[in-house]
Order: sequence, then C-alpha cells, then structure tokens
Amino acid sequence: MNQTFEITYPIPIKIAGIGRFLPKKIVNSDEIESLYGIEKGWSEKKQGVKERRWVDDETISYMGARAAEEAIEDAGLNLNDIDLIFNASSGGEQTFPDGSALLQKELGLGGSGIPCMSHHATCLSFLSGIDFCSNLLMVGRYKKILVVSSEVLSLSLNKTMPEVVTLFGDGAAATVLQKSENNDTGRIHAVRLETYGDAAHLVVLLGGGSLKPLASSETQMEDFLIHFNAAELQTTAMQYNQMFLRKLWPGINKDSFKLVIPHQASKLILDFMSLTFPGDKLMRTIDKFGNCSSASIPMALYEAIKKKRLKRGDKALLMGNGAGLSIGGMILTY
Amino acid sequence: MNQTFEITYPIPIKIAGIGRFLPKKIVNSDEIESLYGIEKGWSEKKQGVKERRWVDDETISYMGARAAEEAIEDAGLNLNDIDLIFNASSGGEQTFPDGSALLQKELGLGGSGIPCMSHHATCLSFLSGIDFCSNLLMVGRYKKILVVSSEVLSLSLNKTMPEVVTLFGDGAAATVLQKSENNDTGRIHAVRLETYGDAAHLVVLLGGGSLKPLASSETQMEDFLIHFNAAELQTTAMQYNQMFLRKLWPGINKDSFKLVIPHQASKLILDFMSLTFPGDKLMRTIDKFGNCSSASIPMALYEAIKKKRLKRGDKALLMGNGAGLSIGGMILTY
Repeated sequence: MNQTFEITYPIPIKIAGIGRFLPKKIVNSDEIESLYGIEKGWSEKKQGVKERRWVDDETISYMGARAAEEAIEDAGLNLNDIDLIFNASSGGEQTFPDGSALLQKELGLGGSGIPCMSHHATCLSFLSGIDFCSNLLMVGRYKKILVVSSEVLSLSLNKTMPEVVTLFGDGAAATVLQKSENNDTGRIHAVRLETYGDAAHLVVLLGGGSLKPLASSETQMEDFLIHFNAAELQTTAMQYNQMFLRKLWPGINKDSFKLVIPHQASKLILDFMSLTFPGDKLMRTIDKFGNCSSASIPMALYEAIKKKRLKRGDKALLMGNGAGLSIGGMILTY
Repeated sequence: MNQTFEITYPIPIKIAGIGRFLPKKIVNSDEIESLYGIEKGWSEKKQGVKERRWVDDETISYMGARAAEEAIEDAGLNLNDIDLIFNASSGGEQTFPDGSALLQKELGLGGSGIPCMSHHATCLSFLSGIDFCSNLLMVGRYKKILVVSSEVLSLSLNKTMPEVVTLFGDGAAATVLQKSENNDTGRIHAVRLETYGDAAHLVVLLGGGSLKPLASSETQMEDFLIHFNAAELQTTAMQYNQMFLRKLWPGINKDSFKLVIPHQASKLILDFMSLTFPGDKLMRTIDKFGNCSSASIPMALYEAIKKKRLKRGDKALLMGNGAGLSIGGMILTY
C-alpha cells in the first residue's frame, strides 16, 4: 500500500474527444427585443449577444446524450468503452434521480450498470468536473470518463429583466477524458478553485429545493427564475479575480497560452478579460450562444478545436466565475 | 511526471471525525396516522418507522453546518483546517448557487475561498462522495475534506400516499476524511457503484428542473412530490443486488464485518438484508429516523460509532440503493 504518492502537475490527462449539441431553434436578439419591449439593438450593444439557442422540445438529457455520442466518436471509442458517466451541469431535468442516470438511459446504456453521478458547481461544473475526474484517472479508478455539461436556462428566465432574458442560452457539450499515453500531448498543468459563500446572494435561483417548497403559500413564480445583480456581481467577481491568475500559476507567462477560453458570463467580464488577453487570444462565443452556464466553457472549447484555433500541443487557459460565488481556472495542453 | 501510478485497495483513508444534526421536531407515527387517515400502527408494522424528525425552521445548510462543526471538532481540527467542502446530498435548498456555497457561508467560512461543490447520486451521494474524495486525498489534491449530507424530504412528501408520508425523515451528518498516517487504522478496502438508468422511473421527484417548469400550465403540485412504486422498486433492487456483494469483493467473507450499515431505504429491504447479515450485524435506524436519503448512511454510521458498535479497527460494509436506479457498496475499516 503506497501511502506517499502525490501527483505533481503537470499531469498526463487528455481530452480524447469532444462533442456539442445545439438546440434547433435560433432566437435572434431582434425577436426578444420586440417581444419584451427592449430597445432595438440593446442585446448586442450591452450584452454582446446577437442570437442564442433556446430549446423547443429538446431535453437536458437528450442534448447531453447527443453531445456525448459525438465526443465518444471523436475519441475513436464506442459507448461501452466508457466506464464513468459524469454529469457536470448546474441545472437539472428533475430532482430524483439526478441527471446522470437520465443521460445514461438516453445513451441506451440504461442496462449497463456503468456508474453515474452529477457534479454541481454552477457555471464552473465542467471545469471543476474535469479537475475531479483527472484525479480519478490518475489513480486508475476509471479509464475513460464521459464528462457532460447540458443546460436549459431558457425556462428559468425572468422575462421582465432585460439583462436576464437577453443573456442566457441553452446548449450542451461533452468530452471524453483519459490518461495521456505515449506521444499524447494532453496535460493539465495547473488548476485552482475558490468559493466565496458570502457572495452567494449575488446570483440566485431560489426555487427547486427545500427553501421554496411549492406547497407553501409564500412561494412565488419568480422564485423559480434566475435573479442577479449585474453591477454588484461584476464588481465582486473582478475583485476576487484580481490575484487569481498569479495564484493559479505563480510566475504566469500569458504569452505561453495559445488561447484563453473563459466562461461566457457577460460582455463586461469578457471585455475586462480582453485587456489582459488582447487580440484573438480570448475565445468569444457569447454573440452566438449567450451564457449557457456550465456548458459555456466546453461549447467554446469545441468551437476552438473545430475551428483549429486550438490544436494538439497548444496550451489553453480555461477560466470563469460562477454563482457561489466561485472562481475557477485550469491550464491545459490539448 | 509519474504516469504509471495506480492505487490498489486497500487505500489508507480514514474517517477522522463524524457529526450529526437532528431537527428538533420529533414526529410520531401515531400523529401522522391520525392526520392522514392511516390505520393505527401501520407505519411501524409496514415501514418499521416509529418516529422521524421533520424540520420546523431548520434549513439544509443550517443542519449540514451543525453536523460539520461536530465532525470537525471530533477530528480534533479547526474550521480553517478544511481544504475542500463537499456537499454530498440528493436534495438542495435552492438551484443556484449549489448547496456547498450555502454550507460554506453557514459555517462562517464565506470569505475563506475554500473550494466547494455538490455531488448528487441520490440516496448514495454520501457513499459515492467518500469514494470520490478518497481518490483526491490519495493523490494529495486535498488534505482534509469535509463531506456533508443534509436532507429535507418532509417538504416533498405526497401526503395522500401512506407509503411515502410515513417513510421519510429529515437530518444531516458530516465526516472529515483524511489520509491515514502512522498507526491510524482507517482503510477503504473496496468500493463499487452501479447505475441502471432503465429503472430511472421507479423513484422520481419530477419537479425542480427543466422538465416541469413552473411557468408551464402542465406542471402540477404533485410533480414536486416524491413518487415511487414500492413493490416494483424493491423487486428490481433485489434483482440487481443479488450478485453485487460478490462483485464488490470477490471471495467475500461476511464474518469479517463487525457491522453492516445499509441505507435505511425501507423495512422490506432491511429485512431482506438481515437474512444475509443476521443478528445485530445490521445497523437499523429506520425506526427512529425513517429514510433520510443520502444522510441515512452517515447518520447510521454516527450512531454505530457513538454507541461503540463500530470501534477503531473494526471493519464495516456500507451499502445501499438509490434512485437512478443505483447500487453502491464500500468496505472500510474505521
């Protein structure tokens, strides 16, 4: 029994395959502005969002499964090669069972016995999830882990708040994580997560749990909608973020990254990050997809890979804020 | 960079400390039977539940924090020694942020930056959570992990279904997990998780996510209540469970366990398990606390330790079924 082993970064972990699913329905900002009495052009100017996808009949598990199938194929694997199904999403389809079992069933693996569970760190669920799974791979607990982030936010939007109804989109992305072998370039160089519960009130969806039971006369429709204070949230996030990169990687050399893939939280946060990472170093997908919570980072990673902005051997920084308030960052080589 | 390390069980992981919180309000079966027109004595006879706790004003994060404080003290540590707060619960207080941030805040650690996340594998969240965390400890990613399971089920009970309203209770338990050192007896000998999504419909709480949005006219109050088909569930669970112990530990010797600590799922499941583990080998707390979902196993573990039915150096089997349908088992030395 080895009691002394400790991993030292970088660790040999690779994204073996990646997939994405976009709901069919594209909702233009024009349309939202007309519907909810918002000034024409406001969504793009203030939020940086031209269009986003909103589900029609697609469910969270349906979207997740389709993204997963593409990721598994991209990794050159079959469904049955997967030995852990890890649902890393902030929202769910239902309370019991958790989304991982529904995803397994939707993949046609409902009789397989493959273990499934869900990991919830709001918008950082994907980033935190691949950190967790990388450790499980390192010790050989699992060999090929499917990590899926699938989000439907469009059904929880307060339509009376322009900054909410214009910002969020639906979508899913999935990756297959494995240990790197032989000449594989995949590495995780550093990872860091911080949570500040004192700022838990800044982004909330109060419903869906024991705080706002449906049977209570005090529970209202708006408890089941996302609320946030954009100004206070952004100020607080920027304050916590200030020293974060240096703590993530002391002596950080920003030139060593080919690409920075941030959570597509808001135009203001992305604009602020582009001061540190100018030019085409910052991956932006908010214009096409809005903020898709935990699915934003892997959806943007998919786009970066498929458009060859991130190639095998390139180094990327994944980073973002989530409700909590949390900050997360990971430096990896694809 | 060590690419070849793989852990082999047993691994040197210990439960350094344990804590529990029980809501003040004790609800006797008599009271429930009178209230909901159930035959007197039915709860105890059919469900094995004499009384259970139901929250009055206690919240999930409040209960979790009080259990956590006891666990940290029991481990001889201070709050600030904890480097990961891991919420392993099946239900939540609210949707955003996830319960881990609320727990951190309730512990007075809301400005600490200690990373927090939630892990959801329904009734097996605790068992699955300590499996996950044990791997993180083994690689040195974290040193002292707080694992908390806190559940409020009483607000999601279908009062018209005797088998639901009499079965469930509220409660919380927490452990501090660390690597064993020197003469520590703590070990995890084996762990196994299986999920069968084809049986996802057998235990459901459909509300709380995108499937049953509150704004939809099709969403009904009862969607936010727990539903299960007891007969089909128990038959299916027993079928899946048949070979499970032998897969968990091939050549298993049942006499080597001091105690079996099952999820307190139902009287029938416990009675069935007692055929395999007769006498006082099976820990039962269902009579006092009912089924507390993910909190059942750690609450029973707490009881076993405090009543000296499980001492340092004793071997225990933790096992249960959860919605999903999942089966989980872990063999550990305390």
